Amino acid sequence: MTDLATSFRADLPSWAIEHLATAPAAFDTDEAAMAFCTDLARRNQQADTGGPFAALVLETATGRLVSAGVNLVLASGLSSTHAEVVALSLAQTRLGRWDLGAAGNPAHTLLVNWRPCVMCGGAALWSGVTRIVIAGDGPELEVLTGFDEGPVHPDWIAEMARRGIAVEVGVGRDAAIEVFREYGARTDAVVYNARGTSRTD
Amino acid sequence: MTDLATSFRADLPSWAIEHLATAPAAFDTDEAAMAFCTDLARRNQQADTGGPFAALVLETATGRLVSAGVNLVLASGLSSTHAEVVALSLAQTRLGRWDLGAAGNPAHTLLVNWRPCVMCGGAALWSGVTRIVIAGDGPELEVLTGFDEGPVHPDWIAEMARRGIAVEVGVGRDAAIEVFREYGARTDAVVYNARGTSRTD
Repeated sequence: MTDLATSFRADLPSWAIEHLATAPAAFDTDEAAMAFCTDLARRNQQADTGGPFAALVLETATGRLVSAGVNLVLASGLSSTHAEVVALSLAQTRLGRWDLGAAGNPAHTLLVNWRPCVMCGGAALWSGVTRIVIAGDGPELEVLTGFDEGPVHPDWIAEMARRGIAVEVGVGRDAAIEVFREYGARTDAVVYNARGTSRTD
Repeated sequence: MTDLATSFRADLPSWAIEHLATAPAAFDTDEAAMAFCTDLARRNQQADTGGPFAALVLETATGRLVSAGVNLVLASGLSSTHAEVVALSLAQTRLGRWDLGAAGNPAHTLLVNWRPCVMCGGAALWSGVTRIVIAGDGPELEVLTGFDEGPVHPDWIAEMARRGIAVEVGVGRDAAIEVFREYGARTDAVVYNARGTSRTD
């Protein structure tokens, strides 16, 4: 067997790299970071590089922007490149270590424009972040966009807390929902992980 | 902000690439594939490139080997590079598409040497595989190795079935457990995602 693939990679699209050049070095508030994140999600779906999802990794104490990711499933051809996995992987690449919670280093926050799907909740757990900030956790994402979050544990916030991760819900909720609504109104969008569900538009 | 990372990648280690050159083009049975997978997991922990975990993507009907992955957390520095994510990403890279279940193509199986953690169960869901074969799903992995599987949904097999994925449990169970036992007996192993749990050795 010499035709097996031996590596894989994912790259932010050029529009995102250009846009991120305008990002501040740090955000003063979670609200400001979420506004940037939500805008990034909107730009991603408008550019057709992936779904309407974005995520940031921040230093918890300072708001320093460590990484920014968008959903890259369509652009990378890799189904696991959801925004959270991309942001966490880019943070780990930049810092040169898999553990964002390693002793002696600043604590990190993962900020996302909605509740992570089952895969991304796990990815957050194994990344070393100690705080997750989300715009919301209700059914709006699935209802408006047709995406499936998968079998998230019924008590996922308690399960996160049990493993040292605090979850804060409801930052920038209305603006996040508006992006899902815009996406849901499209008739040409690819819902690439909606197994067992159907589009609602 | 010009110092943000804009791409990430993961590579199979050289020992794995050499070893995979000896792999058959296809496996006659799930048992034969699991024996190969379990051996790959053992080699991975012996080489210190990651935990004692490996995964294969196979064409379901023919047993054709599409990709092979090992846990690369330590080698890649990316916490999401569990064996399943690596194998699925390598399969998608080789085939040039994110959906391994795309219409008009052979159906695919993900074969792993134990129940996937919460992240990898989600990764399987979004990959397009329609069948998962595992050596076991009991507490042996966590007890013997100290790794945490995370908050897997209590009815995860039913949740998979509901989304079109059949799960088969118990192929090559004893050999898989033996690898976890060997790993657990090490005193120098890095348990890199054991948040909230403690080593048992």
